[in-house]
Amino acid sequence: MAETVKSELQAELSERKGDYAETAQGLAKKKAWQPYVDAVLGLSNYWYPAFFSHELAEGEIKGEMILGEKIVFKRVDGRVYALEDRCAHRGVKLSARPECYTKNTITCWYHGFTYNVKDGKLEAIITQPDVKMRIGLRTYPTEEKSGLIFVFIGDMEPLPSLASGTPPGLLDEGVVTRGVRRLVKSNWRHGVENSFDFTHIYLHRNDALMKARHMPLPYATKVVLNEQAFHMVEDEEGRNGLFVHATANEPPIFEVEIEGTTVRSPRAPAPGKPVGNADFETSIWMPGCLRVDPWPAKGMQIYSWTLPIDETTHYYWAIVATKVANAYEEQEFYNEVDYLWKDLALTTGFNDSDIFAREELEAPYAEEDFWYREATFRPDIFILQWRMLCARRHRGLHKRLWSTEKAR
Amino acid sequence: MAETVKSELQAELSERKGDYAETAQGLAKKKAWQPYVDAVLGLSNYWYPAFFSHELAEGEIKGEMILGEKIVFKRVDGRVYALEDRCAHRGVKLSARPECYTKNTITCWYHGFTYNVKDGKLEAIITQPDVKMRIGLRTYPTEEKSGLIFVFIGDMEPLPSLASGTPPGLLDEGVVTRGVRRLVKSNWRHGVENSFDFTHIYLHRNDALMKARHMPLPYATKVVLNEQAFHMVEDEEGRNGLFVHATANEPPIFEVEIEGTTVRSPRAPAPGKPVGNADFETSIWMPGCLRVDPWPAKGMQIYSWTLPIDETTHYYWAIVATKVANAYEEQEFYNEVDYLWKDLALTTGFNDSDIFAREELEAPYAEEDFWYREATFRPDIFILQWRMLCARRHRGLHKRLWSTEKAR
Amino acid sequence: MAETVKSELQAELSERKGDYAETAQGLAKKKAWQPYVDAVLGLSNYWYPAFFSHELAEGEIKGEMILGEKIVFKRVDGRVYALEDRCAHRGVKLSARPECYTKNTITCWYHGFTYNVKDGKLEAIITQPDVKMRIGLRTYPTEEKSGLIFVFIGDMEPLPSLASGTPPGLLDEGVVTRGVRRLVKSNWRHGVENSFDFTHIYLHRNDALMKARHMPLPYATKVVLNEQAFHMVEDEEGRNGLFVHATANEPPIFEVEIEGTTVRSPRAPAPGKPVGNADFETSIWMPGCLRVDPWPAKGMQIYSWTLPIDETTHYYWAIVATKVANAYEEQEFYNEVDYLWKDLALTTGFNDSDIFAREELEAPYAEEDFWYREATFRPDIFILQWRMLCARRHRGLHKRLWSTEKAR
Repeated sequence: MAETVKSELQAELSERKGDYAETAQGLAKKKAWQPYVDAVLGLSNYWYPAFFSHELAEGEIKGEMILGEKIVFKRVDGRVYALEDRCAHRGVKLSARPECYTKNTITCWYHGFTYNVKDGKLEAIITQPDVKMRIGLRTYPTEEKSGLIFVFIGDMEPLPSLASGTPPGLLDEGVVTRGVRRLVKSNWRHGVENSFDFTHIYLHRNDALMKARHMPLPYATKVVLNEQAFHMVEDEEGRNGLFVHATANEPPIFEVEIEGTTVRSPRAPAPGKPVGNADFETSIWMPGCLRVDPWPAKGMQIYSWTLPIDETTHYYWAIVATKVANAYEEQEFYNEVDYLWKDLALTTGFNDSDIFAREELEAPYAEEDFWYREATFRPDIFILQWRMLCARRHRGLHKRLWSTEKAR
Repeated sequence: MAETVKSELQAELSERKGDYAETAQGLAKKKAWQPYVDAVLGLSNYWYPAFFSHELAEGEIKGEMILGEKIVFKRVDGRVYALEDRCAHRGVKLSARPECYTKNTITCWYHGFTYNVKDGKLEAIITQPDVKMRIGLRTYPTEEKSGLIFVFIGDMEPLPSLASGTPPGLLDEGVVTRGVRRLVKSNWRHGVENSFDFTHIYLHRNDALMKARHMPLPYATKVVLNEQAFHMVEDEEGRNGLFVHATANEPPIFEVEIEGTTVRSPRAPAPGKPVGNADFETSIWMPGCLRVDPWPAKGMQIYSWTLPIDETTHYYWAIVATKVANAYEEQEFYNEVDYLWKDLALTTGFNDSDIFAREELEAPYAEEDFWYREATFRPDIFILQWRMLCARRHRGLHKRLWSTEKAR
Repeated sequence: MAETVKSELQAELSERKGDYAETAQGLAKKKAWQPYVDAVLGLSNYWYPAFFSHELAEGEIKGEMILGEKIVFKRVDGRVYALEDRCAHRGVKLSARPECYTKNTITCWYHGFTYNVKDGKLEAIITQPDVKMRIGLRTYPTEEKSGLIFVFIGDMEPLPSLASGTPPGLLDEGVVTRGVRRLVKSNWRHGVENSFDFTHIYLHRNDALMKARHMPLPYATKVVLNEQAFHMVEDEEGRNGLFVHATANEPPIFEVEIEGTTVRSPRAPAPGKPVGNADFETSIWMPGCLRVDPWPAKGMQIYSWTLPIDETTHYYWAIVATKVANAYEEQEFYNEVDYLWKDLALTTGFNDSDIFAREELEAPYAEEDFWYREATFRPDIFILQWRMLCARRHRGLHKRLWSTEKAR
């Protein structure tokens, strides 16, 4: 269900006016999307992807930091369980030296505190078997679907559905996934915003993928701010998303004038060749997953999930998905991603430029208050809408559970 | 002289109760051993080992940071002198480019300020000989015994004896020492606590030393909290120590039950082989030195001294000691430590596991307030007693002498 | 025009008295040269060297941080233009991926925001050509002279002349320059003070340059604090400088007595060899450039400019200058600097010792408040005069334009 655009725009424009009329001092805490500016550690009460399924074998233990929380995962009888990765006794990470004696437990390497992965309760203390303590570790809900292991970060009850925090299509029957997860040294919001930024494609004009696919790339497409430019949805599953289809009805622009000189895009089509608009659909979904369909090839979708690790780093998930009918098709898809798209679309041939941009954004926003100084332009309406969406629909701004500040 | 255990335990237990009943916020500054929690930079007014004697040759100059203080050492006519390692003129470290013109002096490499190492007074200024300034550097008392150079950190008068701050035995006539000094990236307290932690031996069960010595290793020994479990002493020299002999009267436990499965220690003795209790005595001494006798072999003791460098690093001294009757025995001992025990007991074969544990403790205690959140169990009574001992008997919590906070 | 020395000295001496009589706490904010102590990020409203001319070719783009400001430079038709290196749109550095479509513009690699380098105004937005925004980047005045590109940091109007902030001689007709620019990990003031510190030459006594030039090096020259020892000038161009010529009338001292022993300089002249005073003139100029004439050889001058990068780093410019009559002489000079003086005088053979000293000064001044604890001696009168000069004549202490503190 689309929402009306007008009042959004008015809010945004009056905000913009203020932005230039007042000092930075005066602007503090006045953004229309202020909760988003404050969401340094990500959005609480959502499901986040932790691993590809094939990364965690039966009985295997792995730790990760997600939204600032240390979490250890173990797969038992096919199911994945997740616990606080911090022994209740002295605080060390269980995953630092993974150790198991029985199927359902993880044992701390230091003093043998042994926790049941299903409820987090202390099952035994190897170094003092007669001692019983009613302590345990926090457990995290997990789900596994479409080749991905998801973990729920938050404390909301009842537990929101996995569907409500994943983009449409990803959980469909028959969907398989393949891809990469890369560490980026920037806050997560620079990751999300870069991912669906309408004009950031300019950054990619010299990337190998463009050449390999013979993609003509216009300098611009005029953005007309009407109700066709984008629309927000909240679907029957509770998903909150924003569709960007600004280019739908406008012709691509391959030439711009600078200083009286006409400069033609090196990726303009050859004379006589047909020029189409973008033939893919772009949408962004809370808590931070881009969907492009089709991409990087027909019959495939990409889900680029931005996963906050801590305040200054995030994982850049590039998940390629498709539907397969049988094991042969599945293996063929994996081969195609592993041997073609991984280099060409997910790393050196394309996404490296995105990582470059995300990391360049970190300094001005973290050190120079660019949240209050940026000069957004018309196509950024999509980014501002995304911020407004998060500000209005978020289920909590995540905070560190344990910190020196809290205890003293 | 042993002290009564009961009141200690009561204090500890009531403390523990509070620990679980209240929020972390409410717990702040309420620990029975609070001075220990505040002793971030170590305990003042104790002697600390700075070097092995053989590390500082006649006339040689070396600098170290100890309890946050920069100190430069020089050996003159066999005696070691210690000075503030910070030229009074412009503050640079004298040890950065060691320089000497005469036996009793150290000259600053920058402008030739020359200090007498015996009293720290400015003796001459090479670059302006006619200028006399009544300035000088702080001197530190030193002592050398049993192959170790000690330095006194503090300002107490009269000066406490070296014996009062070293474990028994180390200074005895005929004792020689050999070992290693390794940098560990954690606060010093994690070093001390790990060193005599009764159950941390679990961590070592796969270390090479265990296999080389065919040591059976029980999972546990039941700790009975009676007056035989441990005792504190303050001896006639003024030493404060804590003896841990919990295992004396209890049988070792080689099997534990987890999830209904009996799990046998891989280091359990073969059927029919005799199983003894630990045949060594363990004690810990203020300001932070473990003594194990005998270890790593009969006729030897190990003194594991935890030396605070700064707030987040410490030296892990592993000093093997023995008594020798002549130079031949002395050299034989050095050879045995250098070519056998150094690898097998002091580094890769055993102590590397301790360094791993000490560094894993740093994050939860430094960043997540684990001093107020830890869930200690029965065998930790020894650690809590150590904390109580330090809280009651310490001679001052060390603070940085010079800092921006103090001057502005 | 020389100023009277007496009142300066009196101020300095009464200051010194206070220094020793009071605690560091009491001394806070009482230095006679307090503005200098506060000038952490350098002096505003001066010209600073950004590059050697040959480092920026026609059409080339390079970024640098100068006094904490990110600046991007481009050469157009031979002239150098300088802009804020921070796109107004999202804050990224234009210089991170330099990009140009037309002669007078720089285009941001991220979204195609294109700025005219001459006035900083937004000329076009490649990714949305019909959008017009009245935004722009701050521009910086530049000048190019004697083979150096200068940039003005500040906001003073009218713009002070380049001459008023450069040492005499550097801008003269026919002057050419050559040299190096090296990163030093210390605050800029340690760079300046080290550069003309009268007695720091002691530090260099074993450097290769001394041996190569057969330079005898006395331990000391007596400093007599009279009106001949130094003089400050403010010339008709507005330059503020300080000449140090303490050695003019005093004999060099090659022997000093320490602990009753006479110690002779290893760089004393051989018996019978003549000994002269230093045959070069030393002066220091605001905002921080040493001039030594002649140095490193006859007919040459060195200009050692200390350029603040940020609070804890600076560039150490070593600029050798000479006058040439024709292109042949010019090339011969470049060859001599590149193949002889660069190693022998500007880096390994001499200046590496200065970098060592500058970096050693960082810790005591930054962490241990040495501004309030240092024990200056008589020859430091030159340094104290420099500080007084800066405290009285500076045109502003530089502050970061944009920071989190300012906006929130």
